[in-house]
Amino acid sequence: MSARAPRNPAFVETVRASFAAQAFMATLGATLGRVEAGEVELELPFSPALVQQHGYLHAGALTAVLDSACGYAAYTLMAAEQEVLTTEFSVHLLEPAAGERFRATGRVVRAGRTLTVCEGVFASVDAPERPLATMTSTLIALTPRT
Amino acid sequence: MSARAPRNPAFVETVRASFAAQAFMATLGATLGRVEAGEVELELPFSPALVQQHGYLHAGALTAVLDSACGYAAYTLMAAEQEVLTTEFSVHLLEPAAGERFRATGRVVRAGRTLTVCEGVFASVDAPERPLATMTSTLIALTPRT
Amino acid sequence: MSARAPRNPAFVETVRASFAAQAFMATLGATLGRVEAGEVELELPFSPALVQQHGYLHAGALTAVLDSACGYAAYTLMAAEQEVLTTEFSVHLLEPAAGERFRATGRVVRAGRTLTVCEGVFASVDAPERPLATMTSTLIALTPRT
Amino acid sequence: MSARAPRNPAFVETVRASFAAQAFMATLGATLGRVEAGEVELELPFSPALVQQHGYLHAGALTAVLDSACGYAAYTLMAAEQEVLTTEFSVHLLEPAAGERFRATGRVVRAGRTLTVCEGVFASVDAPERPLATMTSTLIALTPRT
Repeated sequence: MSARAPRNPAFVETVRASFAAQAFMATLGATLGRVEAGEVELELPFSPALVQQHGYLHAGALTAVLDSACGYAAYTLMAAEQEVLTTEFSVHLLEPAAGERFRATGRVVRAGRTLTVCEGVFASVDAPERPLATMTSTLIALTPRT
Repeated sequence: MSARAPRNPAFVETVRASFAAQAFMATLGATLGRVEAGEVELELPFSPALVQQHGYLHAGALTAVLDSACGYAAYTLMAAEQEVLTTEFSVHLLEPAAGERFRATGRVVRAGRTLTVCEGVFASVDAPERPLATMTSTLIALTPRT
Repeated sequence: MSARAPRNPAFVETVRASFAAQAFMATLGATLGRVEAGEVELELPFSPALVQQHGYLHAGALTAVLDSACGYAAYTLMAAEQEVLTTEFSVHLLEPAAGERFRATGRVVRAGRTLTVCEGVFASVDAPERPLATMTSTLIALTPRT
Repeated sequence: MSARAPRNPAFVETVRASFAAQAFMATLGATLGRVEAGEVELELPFSPALVQQHGYLHAGALTAVLDSACGYAAYTLMAAEQEVLTTEFSVHLLEPAAGERFRATGRVVRAGRTLTVCEGVFASVDAPERPLATMTSTLIALTPRT
């Protein structure tokens, strides 16, 4: 739906370094998977530390990995000197988040000069794979004023 | 905006017991504050375990406490035998989530027979208190089929 | 993402009759296109009666056809005696809505017993076709109490 | 929740002129009411041209006036040379939109340098007044490049 030409040739390293600085991802046990121009995946194993009152993953935990997946998908297409910040998201919870292994995939729908719109899917990857939640989010590119 | 007569006379105890079962709230360090019919507050202290790459609270962490605050606000007005489940939310991030102490306040806007709409505000409560994010969410009341 | 077996064998006629009763669609000039189990298209020609201050389609006009496309997509999978009602939607505007002919496509993502989640795309269909806005919405099935 | 000092001293005239150019508002029969710094009201009478299949106002019609109310609330705080554009909104429908006279009130929650977040309420103003829908939206200020 949009051009995918990365302006930052080192975007993979830039994303990996930024992800490593997100302490909350380590708290959740999330790891960074595939990083491509306009698309990023995060992996999350189930943990009893992440549940709500019925033993399913808390919506906040899956939102966190969806937000990071979408944010880094947007970041892959930004310039090297820019920073990325989420401005809003909406999340639809399709089913209770049961499973052993999960994946959040974020994908750029529209990359503008200032704003990027991304879509994300949070899925159980135990066979058969099935979607548990979706996100649409807006990210802003912040350019340092020199 | 809606009737506030609780159908479950023990709604405070019901909410406190359910909150205690949300292991993710303990992982975040969130605690349950005021519980009233149609309105619930959660408290969250800053922790370096919850940050994103710039040292602010990760949007997923603040979404988790907003979601629980809104969900329990809805739950206060449900019948004793019902369960509450979030179906969707949208979150707007107003400012980077900097601060030492935070509060999420969830409030029922409209309580229907099946669906409840809630609004939440996540604020820094270091003086001067200021709002950092808002949520609007939909909750569904699940009645066990007997 | 979900089962597509229609429970109402006359779902095409049911959708067409309901659409014909939506006077607002006639006001906009929208017409019903393809109606399949779980997916519905609406066509909208440009009209100067629908514009905002810069001459583009007003976001409310495109939201109206997206909402009807998603609502009828959900309705195709409901039982004959049920009614459909939108409970919420989020809309992301990707580009100014310029063009001569537009299409809104609504698609069921998850059809539950009570709630259905749909996704919609509003596109300019002048070549080259391009997406202008997206919607994610929640619909509720109302069953008359007899 | 945010500073309300208008940068455009003629903001009332600016908003009125822009509203007059929104042909879609005339199509709906909406009129501009109160215009204050950070808050704008629109009035909408019921019309059979605006209904969905059950005779209530179509969600797209009420979204249109909510979007304009929020957009102009944001516009009151922008500089004279800037233009306003909606980037996204989420709408929650609280009750079927029945009534004779309606009002949409848009209010700025947070006015940033580039983005403004607004909240809107669409209400029936037949006594007793009651809220029918809410909106949270994001607006972007476009500054012409000279």
